[in-house]
Amino acid sequence: MPAVPVESHPPLRVALLGCGVVGTQVARLLAQQADDLASRVGARLELVGIAVRDASAPRDPAIDRSLLTEDAAALVERADIVVEVVGGIEPARDLLLRAIGAGAAVVTANKALLAEDGPTLYKAADDAGVDIYFEAAVAGAIPIVRPVRESLAGDHVRRVLGIVNGTTNYVLDQMTTTGMSLEEAVKEAQDLGYAEADPTADVEGYDAAAKAAILASLAFHTRVSLDDVAREGIMSVTADDVAWAAQTGHVIKLLAIAELRDGATAAGAAGVSVRVHPALVPTSHPLANVRGSFNAVFVEAESAGELMFYGRGAGGAPTASAVLGDVVSAARHRVLGGKGPQESTYAELAILPPSAALTRYQVRLEVDDRPGVLAQVAQALAAHGVSIEAVRQPGTPEAPDGGQAAGVAQLVITTHTAPESALAATVEAVAGLEPVRTVTSVLRVEGA
Amino acid sequence: MPAVPVESHPPLRVALLGCGVVGTQVARLLAQQADDLASRVGARLELVGIAVRDASAPRDPAIDRSLLTEDAAALVERADIVVEVVGGIEPARDLLLRAIGAGAAVVTANKALLAEDGPTLYKAADDAGVDIYFEAAVAGAIPIVRPVRESLAGDHVRRVLGIVNGTTNYVLDQMTTTGMSLEEAVKEAQDLGYAEADPTADVEGYDAAAKAAILASLAFHTRVSLDDVAREGIMSVTADDVAWAAQTGHVIKLLAIAELRDGATAAGAAGVSVRVHPALVPTSHPLANVRGSFNAVFVEAESAGELMFYGRGAGGAPTASAVLGDVVSAARHRVLGGKGPQESTYAELAILPPSAALTRYQVRLEVDDRPGVLAQVAQALAAHGVSIEAVRQPGTPEAPDGGQAAGVAQLVITTHTAPESALAATVEAVAGLEPVRTVTSVLRVEGA
Repeated sequence: MPAVPVESHPPLRVALLGCGVVGTQVARLLAQQADDLASRVGARLELVGIAVRDASAPRDPAIDRSLLTEDAAALVERADIVVEVVGGIEPARDLLLRAIGAGAAVVTANKALLAEDGPTLYKAADDAGVDIYFEAAVAGAIPIVRPVRESLAGDHVRRVLGIVNGTTNYVLDQMTTTGMSLEEAVKEAQDLGYAEADPTADVEGYDAAAKAAILASLAFHTRVSLDDVAREGIMSVTADDVAWAAQTGHVIKLLAIAELRDGATAAGAAGVSVRVHPALVPTSHPLANVRGSFNAVFVEAESAGELMFYGRGAGGAPTASAVLGDVVSAARHRVLGGKGPQESTYAELAILPPSAALTRYQVRLEVDDRPGVLAQVAQALAAHGVSIEAVRQPGTPEAPDGGQAAGVAQLVITTHTAPESALAATVEAVAGLEPVRTVTSVLRVEGA
Repeated sequence: MPAVPVESHPPLRVALLGCGVVGTQVARLLAQQADDLASRVGARLELVGIAVRDASAPRDPAIDRSLLTEDAAALVERADIVVEVVGGIEPARDLLLRAIGAGAAVVTANKALLAEDGPTLYKAADDAGVDIYFEAAVAGAIPIVRPVRESLAGDHVRRVLGIVNGTTNYVLDQMTTTGMSLEEAVKEAQDLGYAEADPTADVEGYDAAAKAAILASLAFHTRVSLDDVAREGIMSVTADDVAWAAQTGHVIKLLAIAELRDGATAAGAAGVSVRVHPALVPTSHPLANVRGSFNAVFVEAESAGELMFYGRGAGGAPTASAVLGDVVSAARHRVLGGKGPQESTYAELAILPPSAALTRYQVRLEVDDRPGVLAQVAQALAAHGVSIEAVRQPGTPEAPDGGQAAGVAQLVITTHTAPESALAATVEAVAGLEPVRTVTSVLRVEGA
C-alpha cells in the first residue's frame, strides 16, 4: 500500500491504560498500522504512554518498554485520546473522569464500569464536550454499539436478543453437539482456555448481564444498570434438557434479552424488561446457528425488521479491532471537526481481472462407465496444477438423478483452490478427453 | 414516551427527492417520529418539500400533498439535508451535486449511481465540506456501510462475501427447500411480488454487482466501479445443481465477493478481486442459513476475524429505516459540530420487574402413568390463564431417556406467551397436583 502524504494536522497523542491481552494488541496495531491509520485519520496517531501496575513485569516483545509508566494519572493529562482497557470499576472510573476533565476523548472496553455507572461517564463527557466510545464493551469485535446508536437512530427498537458470552455459548454448544454434561463441557472450556479457572462470572451470567444493561440503555434511551437485570446462569441446564430441546426443535442458549413493552406499567406507560437466562430457541431462528464461542446480537426494530450481528465476542485481537475503530472515530472528529466520515480511496489498489480470482470448482461430468476413466481425468487436472479435494463416484445410491443411460456414469470433482484461469483451462481439457461425454455443470465453491 | 424539550437550535430543513415505496415511508416516519427524532438530534427535522415527477398523481394518504413539487432543482436549494430516493443516474446525480454545491448534507439510497460514479459525489462532498451518507444503498436496512467505514477503520478487511440480492436468494432458497426448477421459483417470486415482471436486474446479477462495487470500494479504500465487477447471474443454475450441492454438503447462493490479494499483480503489489456469481457454500457456513429474501454480508478482517451482518435487504420500511439513521447522523453533525454521538436517556422508561416479563415455558414433568393425568395438568394451567401450545406424550419412542421407572410417565408441556408471574404460579400449582411426582425442568422459550 503506497505511503500517503498526511495532512498537516499535528500528531494526536494516544494514552493506553492497561497492557493485558487487549492492551498488548492495541499497542501492536497502533505501531503496525501507523501509516494506514494516518491515512484514515488525516493525522498520525502517536502512542505517548502505556500505564501499567508494574513497569518491570515481563511484556510481549511487541511492547516498547520505554512507553511504560506506573503514573496513569499523569499520563492521561498529556493525551488527546485515552484508551482504557484496564477493566473493573476503580481506578478505571477515576482515570476516565480525569481524562474527560482534561479534554481528552475516551475509548473504553470496560463493560463492568459502563453497566455500573455508565451515565456518570456519559454526562461528564457531554458536559466537557468530548467524545466517549465503547464499541468493544459489548460483544467484542462485533459492531453493535455504533449500529444501535447511529444506524437505528431513526427507528424504534422493540427487542434485543443477544448471545453475548462466548464461554457459555461454547459450553452449551458442546452439550448440544456431543451430548456431554455441563460439568464436562465447562472442564473442556477451561482446558482450551475459553473459560477461567473460576468460571463464575461467565456461567452465572454476570458478564452477560453487564452487556444486557448496556444494550438496553442504548436500545431504549433509558438508564439501565446491572442491578436492573434479572439474571440466571446456565448451571442448572442438564444434558437431558439439551436432548429434550432437540426433540422439540430447539437449542438451549444463554440469552441477554431487552424488550420494550407498550403500556406495561401500572400507569399504562411503556416499560423495559431486561433479563439474562438460558432459553429454548427454535432451530430455525438465526441465533440457533451461532456456534462455539461466537457471539451474536439479534435486534427487532419497527421499520428495519429483524437484524443480526455476528462475530467474535472476546479475545485480544478482535477486541483491539473494535477499540481501534473507536480511536479512529475519535481522532477523525478531532481532525475534521463536524464532518462525517469521508470516502477516501487512498489505497488505489489494482483491480484484478476475473481470470486472476482464486477459487475452487465443483465439476460434474458424464463419462463412459468403464475402468480407468477417473485416473485419466485426475491426470488432466494434475497436468494443469489443479489438485483434487474430493471425487464422488458415479452411480452412488445417493445420486439425486438415479436414472442414467446404460454405460454412462457421473463424476463429481471438487478441486482445491487455484486461479480461475487454471481451473477454466482444466475444465476445457477435461471436456476434450475421449471418455468424457458431457460437462454437466461447473460451479465455484466459496466460504470453505 | 415523554415529550422532551428540544434544544434551541432552529429546525433543520429536509428535502425529499422521490416519493415511491421508500420515499413514502421516509415521509411517514419523519412525521410519525418527529418528537423522538428531535430528541435524538437536538433540533426538529422539518420536511420542506417532496420532489416528484407528477404532483397530481395519486399518493399514499400519509403524504401531505401540499409538500409535493415538480421543481426538484429549486427544492434542493432551500434544504439543510437532501434525501435522494429517486434511483437511476440522472437526474439524481445532477440534483445531488446541486445540493452539495448549495451546502446541504446528502443522504442517498442510490446504488446504481454510487456504483457508476460514487467518487465524483464523494469528492464534491469532500470539497464542499458537507456529509454524504448512503447506508441504504447496500443491503437495505442492514447496517453495513457504517460498520465497514467506521467500526473496522482500525482493521484490515481481507474478504467480503455478501448475499445482497433478496430476489435471487428467495429463488435459490425455494429451489433448495422444495426442489422446484429455477423457472418455477422465479415465477413464484414474481407472483409474491419479490421479483419484477422483468427480473433481469436481479437474476443476471446486475443489482448485486452494483452493491459489490460499493462494498469493495469501502472495504479496500480503492475506486471500484460496476465495470470492474465480473458478473454471472443465476439463470444457469439447475434443480440438479441444487440437489448435487446438498449431496456434497453445500447450498447454492448468489455471492458478491470482494477479496484482497497480497502480491497478486505482476509488480507484486496487492490487488482486489471483485465478482458476482452463484457459488456452493458449505452448509456449516453462516451464510448458508440465510433464508428467503433476507440479505447478509460476511466480512473477514485481520484482527476482528469473521463478522456477519444479517437483515432485510429491500422493502419500503426497512430501507427507510436506514435512510432515517443517516438523516439523524447528518442532522447531529449540523447541530453538535465535531462531537460524536452522545448517550442520551431522554426516554426514561420504567424498568419492569422480572415477574412482568412476557415469555413462554417448556415444563417437563414426571407423572403417574394413568389416564386422566394430562387433563388434570391442563386444567391447572387453564385456571391460571396459561394456554398450552403443545404437549408431548410420555414414553414416546423418541424420548431421549428411554429407561424410566414402571408406572411413571413424562409430560413435556410448552405454553403460549404469558407473564412470568402467571407461568411461575402455574408451575407451582402443577407441582402440587397429586399425580405429579417431579417437575424435572422449567425452561423459557424465546425467539419464536
